[in-house]
Amino acid sequence: MDQVLSSWNEGQPKERIIKFVRNATDQESPNYLSPESRIAVFDNDGTLWSEKPTYFEGFFVLERLEELYRTNPEVQHQVEQNPAFKQLLQKNFTDLHLTQKEVLDLVLLTHTKNTQPEYNARVKKWAETARHPQTHNKFTDMVYQPMLELVRFLDENHFKIFIVTGGGVDFVRRALSETYGIPPEQIIGSSIKYQFIDKSTDNSTLFRKPELSSFNESDGKPENIQLHIGKVPVLAAGNTDGDAEMLKYANDNNRPGSSLQILIVHDDCEREYCYDKHPDSEKVLLQARTSNWIVVSMKNDFREIFPHRLAQRPD
Amino acid sequence: MDQVLSSWNEGQPKERIIKFVRNATDQESPNYLSPESRIAVFDNDGTLWSEKPTYFEGFFVLERLEELYRTNPEVQHQVEQNPAFKQLLQKNFTDLHLTQKEVLDLVLLTHTKNTQPEYNARVKKWAETARHPQTHNKFTDMVYQPMLELVRFLDENHFKIFIVTGGGVDFVRRALSETYGIPPEQIIGSSIKYQFIDKSTDNSTLFRKPELSSFNESDGKPENIQLHIGKVPVLAAGNTDGDAEMLKYANDNNRPGSSLQILIVHDDCEREYCYDKHPDSEKVLLQARTSNWIVVSMKNDFREIFPHRLAQRPD
Repeated sequence: MDQVLSSWNEGQPKERIIKFVRNATDQESPNYLSPESRIAVFDNDGTLWSEKPTYFEGFFVLERLEELYRTNPEVQHQVEQNPAFKQLLQKNFTDLHLTQKEVLDLVLLTHTKNTQPEYNARVKKWAETARHPQTHNKFTDMVYQPMLELVRFLDENHFKIFIVTGGGVDFVRRALSETYGIPPEQIIGSSIKYQFIDKSTDNSTLFRKPELSSFNESDGKPENIQLHIGKVPVLAAGNTDGDAEMLKYANDNNRPGSSLQILIVHDDCEREYCYDKHPDSEKVLLQARTSNWIVVSMKNDFREIFPHRLAQRPD
Repeated sequence: MDQVLSSWNEGQPKERIIKFVRNATDQESPNYLSPESRIAVFDNDGTLWSEKPTYFEGFFVLERLEELYRTNPEVQHQVEQNPAFKQLLQKNFTDLHLTQKEVLDLVLLTHTKNTQPEYNARVKKWAETARHPQTHNKFTDMVYQPMLELVRFLDENHFKIFIVTGGGVDFVRRALSETYGIPPEQIIGSSIKYQFIDKSTDNSTLFRKPELSSFNESDGKPENIQLHIGKVPVLAAGNTDGDAEMLKYANDNNRPGSSLQILIVHDDCEREYCYDKHPDSEKVLLQARTSNWIVVSMKNDFREIFPHRLAQRPD
């Protein structure tokens, strides 16, 4: 038992998680779950890795925008026409306001109009080199050690783990699949449309169209869980209001004790970031408390936050 | 070796398949494939189970339409207004012509407007009881024994097998997942849109909206393979022109011998159905021959067609 979840402090969250997994795998338990029903879903940003000062995918967007601005006259023109895009490129984030449409336009601009292999290579390279502006660690090192241990613990107990992220599905696959040890086919996210490029048998491929297919947030999460998995998860973990639908969906009220919901609360101003007083955070915390979900305080329940003795606090 | 693919006759197809798998799993071979890259995709209708006199899902549609006609005044009205629908309900299939839109309307009418658990239960019941109009076997028994053995052989060699079907994804999951031993999360198909029904933690669920999301045929197959798997398959099997894009996509021309394409040819008029002279069949057969895909003659290469000594020929 000592080896299990060693970066978690002793306390109710750790106890409840271990008890749930022990019961799920104990055929004598009323809360035993068949291996094929052991589906666990995890949000990514703020649940498995950090998301401050903004979603890490935003830094990829910015880096790609800079490159396109230098090399693509069309993008140059598009940026010049938009004060917010110009401000973004100047890295002047104070009072930067982007509408939802502008954010989508930026995502499509920087994530599409190339082939899938080109895009994959670009994300991989970014993930291998890009560093966080405050900690100067690689973004892929800013994953939560206790959550990595939870993923490993579930995997050892024959749970099948899926990431269900609002981030771009192909971005998260290429940036994080190896770090988490979760294969690309178990990563579900927001998606754009693909267009098959038929070169007969001479390496036909896919073109990434500048068109949104699915935004994997809020209602989108349970809907895409059905599309991709076809089962209702028995365990769900998230950290914000956009994860609430997924957590509710995994809540089987007919069989109390046979499902588990985990809410990560960002209350550690010293070792990570604290934003637990944000209205979205407070709303989902209220839901968690009334629904008996496991509420994980990063400050109190995580013995360590990041792996490999990295710098654990922002500048 | 004798145990492997025992329902296949000796010959080039069987030899090539076994050689491919031996190389893929032999670290000394130039065609060795890492376990995580061993992704195999199979079409369903006509590749894993029979599809004559029409796609078996069509019988589910008809059975459901009959029920709705009896119980739902709105559907009754819709059928009365449409001569083709009336003819279908009378099971007068001679000269029955349905437009593409009518087929889609029928599919949406019979597969949606219920919750996901209701739909799942309905398909499961159908699969457990419905019988083929000519052989009188259960539809789920009309699967191809040699293909079941191929799926098992690949699975034993740590390939991850996905069904990539033009059929409804949730239909195939509930009707066939157990028969094939392929879990629902490894079944990709045509899909409708879902709507999350938020009942807080009191068993929130999904409503099946009468709206097409994706038609998983032709170009749709490689596109959905990317969405669901995020990798290019190394093995693909199909039987018609609508599978050609998927087979081409799995054809890695940079590494000959490191991918395999299999085309099933329906040329056995005695034991199954022969429709290999259909223009669609001839077109994809020509592609297969010029691309060195494995061409499987059901007549010559399959020692047995169906499992369990079922009646092997139609009326």
